[in-house]
Order: sequence, then structure tokens, then C-alpha cells
Amino acid sequence: MTQNFERPLTILILYSVFCFSLETLPNLSADTRLFLKYSEIVVVVIFTCEYFIRILLSPKRLRFIFSFYGLVDLIAILPFYLAFAIDLRSFRLIRLLRLIRVLKVARYNSALQRFSKALFLAKEELAIFTGLSLILLYLSAVGIYHFEHVAQPEVFKSIFDSLWWSVATLTTVGYGDIYPITIGGRFFTFIILMIGLGLVAVPTGIVASALSAVRRQSE
Amino acid sequence: MTQNFERPLTILILYSVFCFSLETLPNLSADTRLFLKYSEIVVVVIFTCEYFIRILLSPKRLRFIFSFYGLVDLIAILPFYLAFAIDLRSFRLIRLLRLIRVLKVARYNSALQRFSKALFLAKEELAIFTGLSLILLYLSAVGIYHFEHVAQPEVFKSIFDSLWWSVATLTTVGYGDIYPITIGGRFFTFIILMIGLGLVAVPTGIVASALSAVRRQSE
Amino acid sequence: MTQNFERPLTILILYSVFCFSLETLPNLSADTRLFLKYSEIVVVVIFTCEYFIRILLSPKRLRFIFSFYGLVDLIAILPFYLAFAIDLRSFRLIRLLRLIRVLKVARYNSALQRFSKALFLAKEELAIFTGLSLILLYLSAVGIYHFEHVAQPEVFKSIFDSLWWSVATLTTVGYGDIYPITIGGRFFTFIILMIGLGLVAVPTGIVASALSAVRRQSE
Amino acid sequence: MTQNFERPLTILILYSVFCFSLETLPNLSADTRLFLKYSEIVVVVIFTCEYFIRILLSPKRLRFIFSFYGLVDLIAILPFYLAFAIDLRSFRLIRLLRLIRVLKVARYNSALQRFSKALFLAKEELAIFTGLSLILLYLSAVGIYHFEHVAQPEVFKSIFDSLWWSVATLTTVGYGDIYPITIGGRFFTFIILMIGLGLVAVPTGIVASALSAVRRQSE
Repeated sequence: MTQNFERPLTILILYSVFCFSLETLPNLSADTRLFLKYSEIVVVVIFTCEYFIRILLSPKRLRFIFSFYGLVDLIAILPFYLAFAIDLRSFRLIRLLRLIRVLKVARYNSALQRFSKALFLAKEELAIFTGLSLILLYLSAVGIYHFEHVAQPEVFKSIFDSLWWSVATLTTVGYGDIYPITIGGRFFTFIILMIGLGLVAVPTGIVASALSAVRRQSE
Repeated sequence: MTQNFERPLTILILYSVFCFSLETLPNLSADTRLFLKYSEIVVVVIFTCEYFIRILLSPKRLRFIFSFYGLVDLIAILPFYLAFAIDLRSFRLIRLLRLIRVLKVARYNSALQRFSKALFLAKEELAIFTGLSLILLYLSAVGIYHFEHVAQPEVFKSIFDSLWWSVATLTTVGYGDIYPITIGGRFFTFIILMIGLGLVAVPTGIVASALSAVRRQSE
Repeated sequence: MTQNFERPLTILILYSVFCFSLETLPNLSADTRLFLKYSEIVVVVIFTCEYFIRILLSPKRLRFIFSFYGLVDLIAILPFYLAFAIDLRSFRLIRLLRLIRVLKVARYNSALQRFSKALFLAKEELAIFTGLSLILLYLSAVGIYHFEHVAQPEVFKSIFDSLWWSVATLTTVGYGDIYPITIGGRFFTFIILMIGLGLVAVPTGIVASALSAVRRQSE
Repeated sequence: MTQNFERPLTILILYSVFCFSLETLPNLSADTRLFLKYSEIVVVVIFTCEYFIRILLSPKRLRFIFSFYGLVDLIAILPFYLAFAIDLRSFRLIRLLRLIRVLKVARYNSALQRFSKALFLAKEELAIFTGLSLILLYLSAVGIYHFEHVAQPEVFKSIFDSLWWSVATLTTVGYGDIYPITIGGRFFTFIILMIGLGLVAVPTGIVASALSAVRRQSE
């Protein structure tokens, strides 16, 4: 029976997430604000009903309440009721938790487990990769700081600003707000990127071989 | 016999696509415009002939007309004739459908089927990946909005503007029109990118292992 | 015997390439220019000697002259001598051919063959991927032109300018000289990038599985 | 026994690295500077003790001193003591070596060896890839110089500036400080990127198949 309610509830979650986004738009009319407010109340009421129905229908009620999805369901509706009691300033941030509802969409999906199994199989290598990446990020920040601090003291102010450059560069995002201009800094960037892109290639390979292993096991 | 006409027809398709691009150039001379117009008429006439020859040559005529390629052939020539009857404003947009002709180039290619078979094999995992990516995109937009809205109210106006930042950042395009400047926002960007790049690595692995499986099956 | 000369000749090639780069520097002193000129003469003389020694030492002389490396060796020295005879304007561009020398460095490397074998094995899939990428590039250019032309007529002037946007965006380079500002254009960019990044993931998987196949064959 | 001290020592290393970053912040108060100075002294004293305890506890003392980790331990504390004797200018740069301490964190990790074994297995292919990438980088710099030098003499000044463009473009970072504006240059960029992204896909595949081979061997 709960199966039939999954789809409309998923749409309701996506609808409430969309309303949450709309509320952040500047210059909204009073009518729209009112509509969004009532919309929110209706959504929370439905989710509250759903929460209590789930408790009533589950064979082991206490176990459901303290299970992961039970707690997610509770946290998804609690902020609305607490908003009347506690300070309104923190209201918006608490509401973020409502997004955890979206996770429920994939609740019954078995393929997600296969993926998490592959991640578990490769967790040691992924930890090393993450560690090496962090070290490379830090070393490249220190390096670029020494190359560029004199030439651009206002851009590469400290190692923390250089770290921001490292993140934007090694992920190849490259916003263009901070980049080297000296020959040394540019050559250093080249070396760091050659190493960094190689490092990015490794986890791709790790995940690929882990997924093949999981698939072979299940066959 | 139809085999011999594939190559010149493909060239004709590419030629008409090139003409379509030329028409968008500003400051075209009246002569060029006229040439492009007549060029278009010739192309449509040839494609119309081709369409009727295909119908005549196919053993089951009705089946061809309602097959995928039969409909594509029809849609590729229809806009030209409809342009005389209906409103001229929507003229340009209808013409876009003509580009579907390009798809016909790969019509007889068997390797495309192997690729689509691999996609079918991995469709469940790819759906999950797409879902997770969308959730991450939205969550990162909400997060950066809360970090940067106060510091840059004109850049991170609403969650919709933040979503644009999410797209440009997590795909590592990084145009540089919108980026975080606060320490919190930059650190958040770093965390999001570490997760996001990992998420991108997964479908690569999925497609790789699916393609290996398809190749092993066909051997 | 020729084996012993490979290393110094490689260094000489790299040296001449470096000199070629130096010549493009603006504000070079007359002394440096003279040094680079004499340096070039010495390099060409050595390569000319090498070319004739290779001809003399090879058992089948005519076959060497018309082999790939024989022709590369000739083309690498010819521009220098032709520069005296023909127009000096085209001098610089002809010199570019000298860079083909660098290819000689990997001449004896057997691993390069394994790599080219993998590319040959996957050539059908790579051709399809290239075709699909080109179609996607063009379709995204047409799409963004219709979304952004009205809002930014000076940036998205024609489909050719939009194609430049497509290249910079789908390769995730994102220089930031051209980007969408309308909601429609941004949403279209998001859709195109989701498809485009998936398309990029495929050849990675193809090459990976082809390399595995080549390695398994050689074991 | 040494096992129990690994965790606090790792935290101490990360703490000293964090202090090193803090020192580069501009406008630090005198108090903070003093605290960081004393903090540094305490850290070095602890690491000095650790170094001598390690020597005393190791069965073959001379062998430990001249082992890789023995030398890293020494280099990590030496700069502090040498800073009193030699010129203070080079002080900051010598300190960078202290970061090698971070490598000690992963000392006992066996998975790192599996990764380095995969790199060793694929070292020939990775060398070729690196070589091909460098050649492509240089050729693309020469090409873009000839396309863009006339149109943008101040941006594409020499081949060295063009090389910076090549690095930023082929790694898809794309800061946006230097990009082509001519039709020829943009088309050239497109061709180079199609080849370049293919080249990047290869090492990913190489590492993936090498990692699979290593995993199969260890099973």
C-alpha cells in the first residue's frame, strides 16, 4: 500500500524544494509570499500525516522512529513547528534539513547498494587518493605563494588565499579571479597540473575496477 | 542502390547545416542572402524527391512513413513548406528540426548499437548518478547562497543564480562571472568540488565496465 | 653504433626547438639574435651530416630516403636551405616543420605501438564519439544562439560565435569571454553539459577497455 | 609502542603545518606572532626528542639514520637549528621541507604500495603519454602564436606566453587571462582540444587497467 504513495510524495518533496528556492527570489510580490507560506503549511501537514501513518503501519514502531528514515522524516517536519518557538533568525538555515527528504526518493533503489559496495571495496585507495590530493593542494598553495606573493601581494595575500587558487586550479575550474603572472609561478602551475591531473585519473581508475569487481561478483 | 546515394546526401545535409549557420551572420550582403535562399530551395527539393523515392522503394510503404527515419525525413522538409502558411515569427525555431537530418549520417552504423547496448546495461547506475548529481547541484546552490548572499547580494541574488554557479563550478567550466569571495564560501566550494569530482568519476567507471561487458559478450 | 648517437641528437633537437621559441621573444638584443642565428646554422649542419650518414649506413639507401623517418629528416633540414632561395615571408611558417624532429625521440619505443594498436581496436567507437561530439557541439551552438542572441547581440553575434562558446563550454575550459546570462540560456547550458560530460566519459571508457584487451592479448 | 605515538605525532605535524600557514597572513598582531614563534619551538623540541628516541629504539641505528624516513625526520627539524647560523632570508624557503613530515602519516599504509606498483606497471605508457602531452603542448603554443600574435601582440607576446595559454587550455583550467579572438585561432583551439582531451583520456585508461591487473594479481 505504501508503494502507491511513493510517487505523489516524491513530487510533493520536489515541489516543496522548488518553493524553498522561490522564497529566496528578491522582489517577490506579497501575494506570492502568502501563497508560498500557505503552500508550506499544506506540505508540512501532509508530511506530518505521512509520518504518523508510517509509525502506525510499521510492525516495530519504536524501531522505525529511531531508524535512519524515521529520523529523517521527523527532522523534515520538525523545523516548521520549532520555528514558532525559537528565534526566527535561524529559521532559514534549519529549513535546509528539509532537503534530506529528497534522499527518500532513492530509498528502495537496490542499485545504490551496489554502488556503495564498490565504494566500500575501494575505500582504502580512495582515502589515500584524498590524502595525496590534500597534500598536493597544500604544497601547491605554499609553492605559488612563494612565487607570486612579491609580484601580486594583493591577490596572493597569504597561504589561505593561495589555497583558494590551488582548489580552483587543480579541480580545473579556473574562475580567473586569481592566477599566476610570473614565469616561475606559471611553470610551477604547469608542473602541479601535470601531477594533479594524473592524481585525478587514479580514483577514476580505482572506481572503475571496483565496479567491475562488484559486477563480476554479482554475476 | 540507395547505398550509393548515402554519401552525396550526407554532404548535402552538412551543406544545408552550413548554410543555416551562414544565415545568422550579421551584415550579410543582399546577394549572399539571395544565394542562401535559392540554395535552401534546391536542398529542400532534393530532400523531398529523396523522401518520395524512399517511400516508393520501401516494400512496406506505410511502415516506412511511420518509422523513426521516415518521420525524421518528413520533419526535415516540412518546415520549409509550412513556413508559407503559418506565422513567420516561429519560422527560425521550426527550422532547427532540420538538424535532425544529421542523425541520418550514422543510420547504418552498427557500432552505435553496441554503444547504446552498453548504455542500456548501465542505465540503472547512470540514473542514480544523474539523481545524485542533481541533488548535489541543488544542495551546493543552497549552501553557497547562504555563504555568499550577504557578501555579494548582487551576484548571488537567489537560489536560481546560485544554481547557475553550481552548474558552472561542478562541471569545472568556471566562466568566472560568479564565484565565492568569503572564507566560508570558498571552503564550502572546496568540499563540494571534492565530492562532485568523485561523482563525475563514477559514471566514467560505470560506462567503462559496461563497454567491457558488451565487448566480452560479442567475442 | 647509431644507438650511441640517439641521446645527443635528441638533446640537439630539444635545443633547436628551444632556440626557435627564444627567437619569438620581443626586445631581443642584437647579440642574442646573432647567437641564435649561428646556433641555427650549427644545428642544421649537424643534422645535414646526420642525414647523409644515415643514408650511407642504411643497407637499402633509396628505401630509407623515401621512408617516413627519411622524409622527416629531410624536411627538418630543407627549410633552412630553401630560405635563401624563396620568399622570406613564409620563412617562419616553414620552420614549424622542424618540430617533427621531436617525433624521432620516441622512434624506437615499442610501447607506442601498443598504444596505437589500442586506438586501432577502438577506432570505430572513437569515430562515432567524435561524430556525436561534433553534432552536440553544433546543436548546442544553435540552441544558445537562439537563447542569447537577443539578450547579448554583441557577444553571440552569429552561430560561429556560438560555436566558440560551445567549444569553450563542452571542453569545460570556460575562458569567461562568452557565457549565457538569460535563464533559458543557463538552463540550456546545464542540459547540454550533462549530456556533454557523459559523452566525454564514453571515450575514456572505450580507450580503457581497448587497452585492457591489448594487454590481455600480449600476455 | 611506537604505534601509540603515531596519532598524536600526526596531529602535531598538521598543527605545525597550520601554524606555518598562519604566519603568512598579513596584519598579524604581535601577540599572535609571539605565540606562533613559541609554538614552533615546542613543536621542534618534540620532534627532536622523537628523532633521538627513534634512533635509540631501532635495532640497527646507523641504518635508520640513513634510511628515507630517518633523513626526512632529520630534515624536518634541521632548518630550525640552522636558522640561527645561516642567513635569515632563505629561512622561510628551507622551512618548506618540514612539510615532508606529512608524508610520514601514510608510512605504514600498505595500500600505497599497491598504487605505486600499478604506476610501475604502467610507467612505460605513462612516460609516452607525458612525452606526447609535452609535444602537443609545445606544438599548440607555436600554432596559437602564429594565429594570434598579429591580432593580440600584447597578450601572445612570444612562444613562452603562448605556452602558458597551452597549459591553461589543455588542462581545461581556462583562467580567461589569455584566449584566442581570431577565427583561425579559435578553430585551431578546437582541433587542439579534441586531440588534447583524447590524450588525457588515455592515461586514465592506462591507470585503470594497471590497477585491475594489480588487483587480479593480489587475489
